Amino acid sequence: MRPFLDRVCVRVGRVSTTAPTPAPGARPTTWVDGAAGSLFDLDNLPYGVFSLPDEDPRVGVRVGDFVLDLAPAAAGDMLEAAHLFEAGTLNPFLAAGPRTWADVRAWLVEILGSESERSLVEPALVPLAEVALHLPFEVADYVDFYCSLDHASNVGRIFRPDAEPLLPNWRHLPVGYHGRAGTVVVSGTEVRRPRGQRKAPDADTPTYGPSTRLDIEAELGFVVGRPSALGEQVPTGAFAEHVFGVVGLNDWSARDVQAWEYVPLGPFLGKSFATSVSAWVTPLAALEHARVDLPGQDPEPLEYLRVGDRAGYDIAVEVELNGEVVATPPYSSMYWSPAQMLAHMTVNGASLRTGDLFASGTISGPERGQRGSLLELSWGGREPFTVAGAERTFLEDGDEVVLRYTAPGAYGRIGLGEVRGTVLPAAR
Amino acid sequence: MRPFLDRVCVRVGRVSTTAPTPAPGARPTTWVDGAAGSLFDLDNLPYGVFSLPDEDPRVGVRVGDFVLDLAPAAAGDMLEAAHLFEAGTLNPFLAAGPRTWADVRAWLVEILGSESERSLVEPALVPLAEVALHLPFEVADYVDFYCSLDHASNVGRIFRPDAEPLLPNWRHLPVGYHGRAGTVVVSGTEVRRPRGQRKAPDADTPTYGPSTRLDIEAELGFVVGRPSALGEQVPTGAFAEHVFGVVGLNDWSARDVQAWEYVPLGPFLGKSFATSVSAWVTPLAALEHARVDLPGQDPEPLEYLRVGDRAGYDIAVEVELNGEVVATPPYSSMYWSPAQMLAHMTVNGASLRTGDLFASGTISGPERGQRGSLLELSWGGREPFTVAGAERTFLEDGDEVVLRYTAPGAYGRIGLGEVRGTVLPAAR
Repeated sequence: MRPFLDRVCVRVGRVSTTAPTPAPGARPTTWVDGAAGSLFDLDNLPYGVFSLPDEDPRVGVRVGDFVLDLAPAAAGDMLEAAHLFEAGTLNPFLAAGPRTWADVRAWLVEILGSESERSLVEPALVPLAEVALHLPFEVADYVDFYCSLDHASNVGRIFRPDAEPLLPNWRHLPVGYHGRAGTVVVSGTEVRRPRGQRKAPDADTPTYGPSTRLDIEAELGFVVGRPSALGEQVPTGAFAEHVFGVVGLNDWSARDVQAWEYVPLGPFLGKSFATSVSAWVTPLAALEHARVDLPGQDPEPLEYLRVGDRAGYDIAVEVELNGEVVATPPYSSMYWSPAQMLAHMTVNGASLRTGDLFASGTISGPERGQRGSLLELSWGGREPFTVAGAERTFLEDGDEVVLRYTAPGAYGRIGLGEVRGTVLPAAR
Repeated sequence: MRPFLDRVCVRVGRVSTTAPTPAPGARPTTWVDGAAGSLFDLDNLPYGVFSLPDEDPRVGVRVGDFVLDLAPAAAGDMLEAAHLFEAGTLNPFLAAGPRTWADVRAWLVEILGSESERSLVEPALVPLAEVALHLPFEVADYVDFYCSLDHASNVGRIFRPDAEPLLPNWRHLPVGYHGRAGTVVVSGTEVRRPRGQRKAPDADTPTYGPSTRLDIEAELGFVVGRPSALGEQVPTGAFAEHVFGVVGLNDWSARDVQAWEYVPLGPFLGKSFATSVSAWVTPLAALEHARVDLPGQDPEPLEYLRVGDRAGYDIAVEVELNGEVVATPPYSSMYWSPAQMLAHMTVNGASLRTGDLFASGTISGPERGQRGSLLELSWGGREPFTVAGAERTFLEDGDEVVLRYTAPGAYGRIGLGEVRGTVLPAAR
């Protein structure tokens, strides 16, 4: 690793000296150059894992366009939690639980918001442009839900046009399944078009080859910090005791592979080749101002699934394909809340581990422009849409997809980090 | 930890001094008391993780009714791979790959089969009766397949009596799905009856409560050692390059929960509360004499799923309920081979990690007494069977299930270790 003082010298000239000292009682304003008023102000402070060239990954917090190198900053301030930042992953910090999460957040606001801390803290700030970002935590189990009423209804209408769009269980429980934790990758990782078996509706036998219906699913993921014991049920009210924060998530999907394989045991290879997550984990604490009521549930769910007011989140999502926004799904339209997903996932006594990741399923709103998958945007491939003047249905080699997430914060809007991926051609 | 010499003194009197020295060229005979001719002779040598009271878990090899404590034995012999046994889990050894696996096995046969090694090795032997056994490896991803033609046909006939029992994709690919890695537990762990949602066929709405159709599935699990890269396909011919060995596996299932939840995304809470595996991982090398041809596949599978002769395994399974053998499923009857499961699981470029576990699905043979689940043995609960004079369908609180596995070895039959579990009543 580059010596600490060496890195200080590289960076010290890049930080502004003009940030004001906050008046007593006023909300703190950060002295970090360009951060105040940005999507990554003091009301956000997401966590991630970064590395400088030829160095090991380190835990950091994003503020403006800088990363605070947490290990030296915490050790230098003799923070009690400093040892949690020594590994190149967030897992030890996630495992520490909500009191530690709150303590560290309060400390961050203090050191990044007080001009008097600046000279001590500034050496641990690294410009984002100089770092590589890594998968922020080691994923334990990955579960994917199916929580959007509009998405589930659209899928039903596309595949079963003559039947009731929603299946009988859908309004009674958040339908979900386990995905492949080992292929969760960080934003920016290229995604190779998968090969596999698929069968045309009019064919007698399947064929093998590259997927011809490669798709995205714009989702939100929830990251478990504090574990639970085998046999323990985690009630909806304990959501914030166990869940640390959220990531943006793209559940890449090979629709042709999925359609052939998924009866009766569910999606498998159509999903397991890659799931991309944002490099930043936004703590629930940063999303307090984004909490909203659910749109309403009818029928009322069974008691173990009941939640109070403000169980939803008002998070805006943008789906960008090759530089053009093709959809703006609203997370606030989701039928099932994350606390309900968590309670359902553990109602049978299944234990939680630090690093468990569970995702919402495709976020789709009621409007055509609010659909979070190309399957829905192109209505099963039958109604192409236009991107940069060309008709499009599913993903083509070379396509770049970026999912962007923002939400109301305490000061203004906060950014949840993006999920970016480019499609590589199938292996020869 | 208890000092090494202390443990020597505890154990040295329990080892026989009568084992013969092998004649040159003869197959080695172990000097370990009672091991020669047992199910755990030198042709077996499964690996596990054990602990002595108040000590940390350690890696060991079973021989007869003893465990060889691998770390001191390997270090004492200055074995190159000795450092792989320092952790309390098999994962570092699994990751080392087939050359190391073969080297260590040859070394074990030498030290346990040569009277001249006895005085050096004996201090590292621990009686099995003195140890606790632990989950032998850290499970990365867990995938469960559905490879028995008889099981899939039985399930089809039970649930869809008027339709074709096999679904259209079944003979074209090994159907599978991801399960919950975090709730894989070692044999002997008690299993609490899960609660959850289920809906009676004639009811309008679901109810919540303890599962009333708790079941077992007798399966065989395969443990991945050497990982593969994202985007890499692992062909059937590379099976033994990646898979280290096998475990017995009981895929506990709540049939009522599963029936209500599984459309369209597959089994979730009906399976995720517990999956039990044997404490011993039997290396593929010990199963060379158990290899047999598959029963035959029609139609011939797509090229990426083709295998040669002896792709199956002749492993006998006994399902014991409360001390009575209720079924003897033959693994040799399985339609899809483990090499095909592995090739299918990675055909889309999904990477393998050390500790990945994939299981066969319920093992059922063509005869009534060869069915590996109570669902089949009781034909959906409609045809009770008799255990200890009582009529039985699904599991009752207090039931103890033991799965036992044996196979032909080089010397005689080998034991794959048992999978034991007792049903606890649902939480209040």
